[in-house]
Amino acid sequence: MSKLFRGKNFGYLSTLMKDGSPQVTEIWVDIEDGNIIVNTAEGRLKHKNISRDPRIAICVVDQINPYHMVVVRGRVVEQTNEGAEEHIDKLAKKYLGVDKYPTELRSPDEKRIIVRIKPERATYLTQGPPS
Amino acid sequence: MSKLFRGKNFGYLSTLMKDGSPQVTEIWVDIEDGNIIVNTAEGRLKHKNISRDPRIAICVVDQINPYHMVVVRGRVVEQTNEGAEEHIDKLAKKYLGVDKYPTELRSPDEKRIIVRIKPERATYLTQGPPS
Repeated sequence: MSKLFRGKNFGYLSTLMKDGSPQVTEIWVDIEDGNIIVNTAEGRLKHKNISRDPRIAICVVDQINPYHMVVVRGRVVEQTNEGAEEHIDKLAKKYLGVDKYPTELRSPDEKRIIVRIKPERATYLTQGPPS
Repeated sequence: MSKLFRGKNFGYLSTLMKDGSPQVTEIWVDIEDGNIIVNTAEGRLKHKNISRDPRIAICVVDQINPYHMVVVRGRVVEQTNEGAEEHIDKLAKKYLGVDKYPTELRSPDEKRIIVRIKPERATYLTQGPPS
């Protein structure tokens, strides 16, 4: 699992809306001590969703081979602002090759937040079209 | 929306588990008369999920530019076996460049099913990392 999360691969994070319906969004991913790390901004849809219901699912896909992926179901176990600025810069380095997360991608007064997710079940798919 | 669904792009479909938690899976996508078309097999997890709760979300991502995508929330309005074999062959042509969906990707007695999804809300993202 770590390898896909460490690589320059995108994740598709599913969260639950207020009415219990699903939402899905593309995200940058990271992993630390076996927990999935997501960096978002306070007040975003996905942040509101996980603050209401911590249950999530995420699919992380190999950028080279789109039939190689891991699907994880889990739950948010922590949210913190601490270190979130440094962490989004780290992700900007990984995904964009720049030292700082670009200002033009930020909204005014944006407060970054690190979301820690504990995996509960992981499934690997390594060949063939998923269907 | 049509263009992303017509192209050789993958979708990340979120459905709801029995306990209401989200699931997400990579899929091949198609579109017809404004409805999203997914082809799955009877009894698969996503098939069970949508048969219980028709609410879904899907993110379809441009294979060339991973920051170009559409996120759709909607609901399953029809499931049918009719034409499902021809349709999976059509998708195999689009995604794999072969005339028939490969036998080695199938399980014994697999029954294909076409799932028709009515979009209720679509959001486009065309630049910058989603976060």
